[in-house]
Amino acid sequence: MSSDSRPATPADADLTLDPQDWKAFRALAHRMVDDSLDHLASLRERPPWTPPPADVASAITGEPLPTAPQGAEQVYAEFLAHVLPYTAGNRHPRFWGWMKSNGTPIGMMADMLAAGMNVNAVGMDQSAKLVELQVIKWLAEAMGFPAGTSGIMASGGTMANVIGLAVGRNAKAGFDLRQHGLYGQPRLTVYGSTEIHSWVTKCLELMGMGRDSFRPVPVGDDFRVDVAAMRDMIVADRAAGLRPICVLGSAGTINTGAIDDLDALADLAAQEDLWFHVDGAIGSLGVLSPNLRPLFRGQSRADSLAFDLHKWGYLPYECACVLVRDAEAHRDTFATKAAYLRVEDRGVAAGGLVFAERGPELSRNFKALKAWMALKAEGTDRIAAILEQNVAQARRFGALVGTVPDVVLAATISLNVACWRIAPAGTTPEQQDMLTREVLLRLQETGVAVCSGTVVQGRAVIRVAVANHRSRWADFEQLLAALPAVIADARARTGI
Amino acid sequence: MSSDSRPATPADADLTLDPQDWKAFRALAHRMVDDSLDHLASLRERPPWTPPPADVASAITGEPLPTAPQGAEQVYAEFLAHVLPYTAGNRHPRFWGWMKSNGTPIGMMADMLAAGMNVNAVGMDQSAKLVELQVIKWLAEAMGFPAGTSGIMASGGTMANVIGLAVGRNAKAGFDLRQHGLYGQPRLTVYGSTEIHSWVTKCLELMGMGRDSFRPVPVGDDFRVDVAAMRDMIVADRAAGLRPICVLGSAGTINTGAIDDLDALADLAAQEDLWFHVDGAIGSLGVLSPNLRPLFRGQSRADSLAFDLHKWGYLPYECACVLVRDAEAHRDTFATKAAYLRVEDRGVAAGGLVFAERGPELSRNFKALKAWMALKAEGTDRIAAILEQNVAQARRFGALVGTVPDVVLAATISLNVACWRIAPAGTTPEQQDMLTREVLLRLQETGVAVCSGTVVQGRAVIRVAVANHRSRWADFEQLLAALPAVIADARARTGI
Repeated sequence: MSSDSRPATPADADLTLDPQDWKAFRALAHRMVDDSLDHLASLRERPPWTPPPADVASAITGEPLPTAPQGAEQVYAEFLAHVLPYTAGNRHPRFWGWMKSNGTPIGMMADMLAAGMNVNAVGMDQSAKLVELQVIKWLAEAMGFPAGTSGIMASGGTMANVIGLAVGRNAKAGFDLRQHGLYGQPRLTVYGSTEIHSWVTKCLELMGMGRDSFRPVPVGDDFRVDVAAMRDMIVADRAAGLRPICVLGSAGTINTGAIDDLDALADLAAQEDLWFHVDGAIGSLGVLSPNLRPLFRGQSRADSLAFDLHKWGYLPYECACVLVRDAEAHRDTFATKAAYLRVEDRGVAAGGLVFAERGPELSRNFKALKAWMALKAEGTDRIAAILEQNVAQARRFGALVGTVPDVVLAATISLNVACWRIAPAGTTPEQQDMLTREVLLRLQETGVAVCSGTVVQGRAVIRVAVANHRSRWADFEQLLAALPAVIADARARTGI
Repeated sequence: MSSDSRPATPADADLTLDPQDWKAFRALAHRMVDDSLDHLASLRERPPWTPPPADVASAITGEPLPTAPQGAEQVYAEFLAHVLPYTAGNRHPRFWGWMKSNGTPIGMMADMLAAGMNVNAVGMDQSAKLVELQVIKWLAEAMGFPAGTSGIMASGGTMANVIGLAVGRNAKAGFDLRQHGLYGQPRLTVYGSTEIHSWVTKCLELMGMGRDSFRPVPVGDDFRVDVAAMRDMIVADRAAGLRPICVLGSAGTINTGAIDDLDALADLAAQEDLWFHVDGAIGSLGVLSPNLRPLFRGQSRADSLAFDLHKWGYLPYECACVLVRDAEAHRDTFATKAAYLRVEDRGVAAGGLVFAERGPELSRNFKALKAWMALKAEGTDRIAAILEQNVAQARRFGALVGTVPDVVLAATISLNVACWRIAPAGTTPEQQDMLTREVLLRLQETGVAVCSGTVVQGRAVIRVAVANHRSRWADFEQLLAALPAVIADARARTGI
C-alpha cells in the first residue's frame, strides 16, 4: 500500500520513542556508563552519605508535569547534578547500616542488558525462563535442597517470605483457603522469635490473618529462639482451639545476626506436622562458605527458604529468591487459569507461565540475569571468600570496638553484625541511649561511616552490619580511629 | 595501623567484587551498550520471536553450579549467544500479544543508572525518595487526582492492584483487620465485571478472603460492567449478611480493552459507601491524550487507581504505580514500627521510610528513575501522540482485518485491542476455534507477528493489542498481507 492510498490518520505519522538520532543517543549512553563506573571506582573519595541540599530537593520536587520534551541530554545532566550524588550511600566502602549491599559493576550492567531485552519473565518459550530455572537450580543446590526443588526470584525478602508463608499456609490450612478464605475457620497461627523481622506481622496483615496470628517466642541470651518454649506454645494453642501451621526460623536476625537452631526447629516442625519456613534474608548465603556452613545446620531441611542476593549476595536491588521443597505445594498455591493465559504446546506461550504459578505476579522483570551473570563470572568460591571476609571484619571490629574507651559490645557477634553502645562511667541508661544515638548520627553526618541504630534488650545500640564487598580492613580502622573524637563531640553536644 | 601490626586473618585479603581491571571492564561495558543498541535498532530485520533451540536450552540448563570464576567476558559471550536472541519478542515492532510494551532506550539506560546507584528506594534522606515523590505527583496530576494524593511505584499491575485493594479493605472493613484478621467477621465482598483481570481472584486468595469474596457482575454487549446489576448484587449481599467493601472498575479490560462506565461506578461506590478501585493496568495512561480522555470519565474519582508504565507507558519492566486519594488511609494500611527502623529527624534515615508505609516491601529498587527520565525527556505530549497512534492503528487494523476473507471481527474496538477470529463459511464453531488457534500459532511460528489468543463470548479469538511505540502502519500491512496465505496454510494443516 503506497502512502498516497492511505487516509490521513495519526497512524501514518509513525511516531516512536526510539531515538531520532541513534548516534547521539549512543554517545550519551557511553557517557552514562563512563560516569557510573567513574563514580563507583572513586567512592572512597567521598563521604558515604550526602543528603540532597535544599536547592536540589526543591529543584526535583518543584518541577511542573513535563509536557514538552526536554531531551535525554538535558535530563541526564539533571540526573548527574541532582540525583546521582545524593544517596543513602550503601554503595560505599564505609556503609554498614541496616543490611544492604553495594551492588557490583557486573550487576549494574546486567540490569541494563535485562532492561534492553525487556522480557516479561513470567514464563513462555524464551531464554529468560531457562536462565531463571537454572539460577534456582544452582541456588537450591548451594543451599543443600534436593533436586526438583521449586523456587522463584522475588523483589526482596518480604515478597520472598510472603510467598514461602503463603505456600505453607495453603499446604497446612486443612481447608480450601483459595476458594473460601479464612472465614469460619479456626485461627491459623505461626511461630517465630521475638527477634524475627517485621515482615512477619506485615505479611500476616496483608494475608488477612492479623498480627494476632503471630505467636512471638522468647529468645535466650544468644538471641536464638527458645525451641522448648515454642513447642509448649504450639501445644497450648492447639489445645485452645487454634490451628498452628508454621514454624519460622531466622538464618540471621536483623538486630544481631543470630541464627536460630534450625535443626531443632526442623525437628519440631516435623513432630508437629507444621510447615518450616526459614527467613534467611540476612544470612542464608553464608552456606556458600564451608567455614560458615555449620552455623546454618538444619537450614536445608526447611520446607521453604527466603533469602536476598541484594543483601549478602552483593547484587543490586532487586534480587531475592524463595525456594520451596515441594514443587506441587508451590504450584497449588498460585496456579490459576484465565482465558487470555491459555497454555499452548506450540508458539510463544508454549510451556505456560511457570513463574505465574509460583507467585502472585504476572509482570516480572529479568532479575535472574544478574544472578546468572554474577554467579558465573565470579564463581561461588570467590563470593564465599568475601562472605568470610565480612564475618572476619565484623568479629575483628567487634573485638576492637569494645576496647575503645566508653564503648561496650552489646551482643555476641554471631555472624556479620556487631552491636555496640556508648556507656561512659557515671551515666544513666537513658543518658547512654541518648549518647549512643548522637554518636550514630554524628558518624553519619561527618562522613566517617554509615552505621544504623536499633534497640537490643531495651537499650539503644549502634549496628555495624557488614554485607560490603568494598570494605577493606582500613575502612574499619578509620571508624575506630575517629570514634574517640566523635564520642567527645557527642558528649559536648548533649552535655552528657 | 600498618599492615605488619595486623594478625593474619581473611579480613586482610581485602577481596572485592569490583573489577580487578577497571579499564577492561569499561571496554566490556561499552560493548554491552553498543550491542544492546544495535539489537534494538535492527529488530525489524529479525522475526519477533525466536525460540531457544534445543542445544541452547541444554547449554543454559545443563551447567553445574559455577564454583570457579569464568570471568565477565566469557559470561557476556554466552549471554550474546544463548540469551539475548531468544525472547518472546515484545521489543519488536510486530509484537501485539497480551499487553506488553517494547521498553525504550532511555528506559534501558535509566535501569543501568539505577542499578549503579543501587539505592534502596524505601525512603530515607536521599534523592531517590524525592524523585519518586515527584513522579507520583506528576502521575496524580496527569490522572486528574487532587494535590496530596498518595502513591507508590510497584512491580506491576498485580502488586499495584493488591496495594489499592488492601487499602480499600483496611478502610472499609469496619474492624481492626491488621490486628485481628478476618476471623469472626462477616465476609468482605468486592464487585467487578466478569471481564476483569485474574489478578482479582489471585489477590483475594493471597489476602485470605478467597475467591468466594469476588462477586462477578455480568457485562453488556460492549463488555462493560452492568452497573445496575452490580447495585442489585450489593444490596442483596448486604441483606444476606455479607459486607460489601469495594467496587472494582476496569479502565481497559485485558480481553477487549473495554472501559467500564467509571463515572457510574464512582456514583455507585459513593451511594453505597464503598471503596472505588480502578484497575487501569491496560488503559489508564490514555488520559494523557485529550482525545482519549473522555473515554476515562470518572477514573479520576477513584479512591485508588493502579496502572502500568511498562504497558501503555512503553517503559521496560518493572514499572507500575498505584495512586491513593486518601493519604492517611494509605499509610494506615501499611505503616509499622520496628526498633531497627527507628525514625530520626537527622541522619541518613531522616524523614523515615515513607515507601515502607505505602506498601508491603522494605527493599525496593529505584523504579521511579526511568519514569522520571522518560517523562522529562519525551514529555507527556509526545507520549500521548503515540498512545493516539496505537489507538488509530488498532482501529484501522480492525476495520481492515474484517475485510480479509474468512475473518470476522469479534468485538468492537474500544481502545487499543482488536479481537478477531477465523470463520470460513460452512465450518462449525469448534472448527473455527481450532482454525483460529492454528492461525495464531502459525503467525508466531513464521515470524509474521506475535498476537495472542483469548476467549471472547465463548469463542477463540486472536488479539492484536497495540502498546507498541515501534509499530509502523507498514507493520500492520505486513500482517494483513500475510494473512490469506497463513489462513490457507492453517486450513491445510488442520484439514478444515
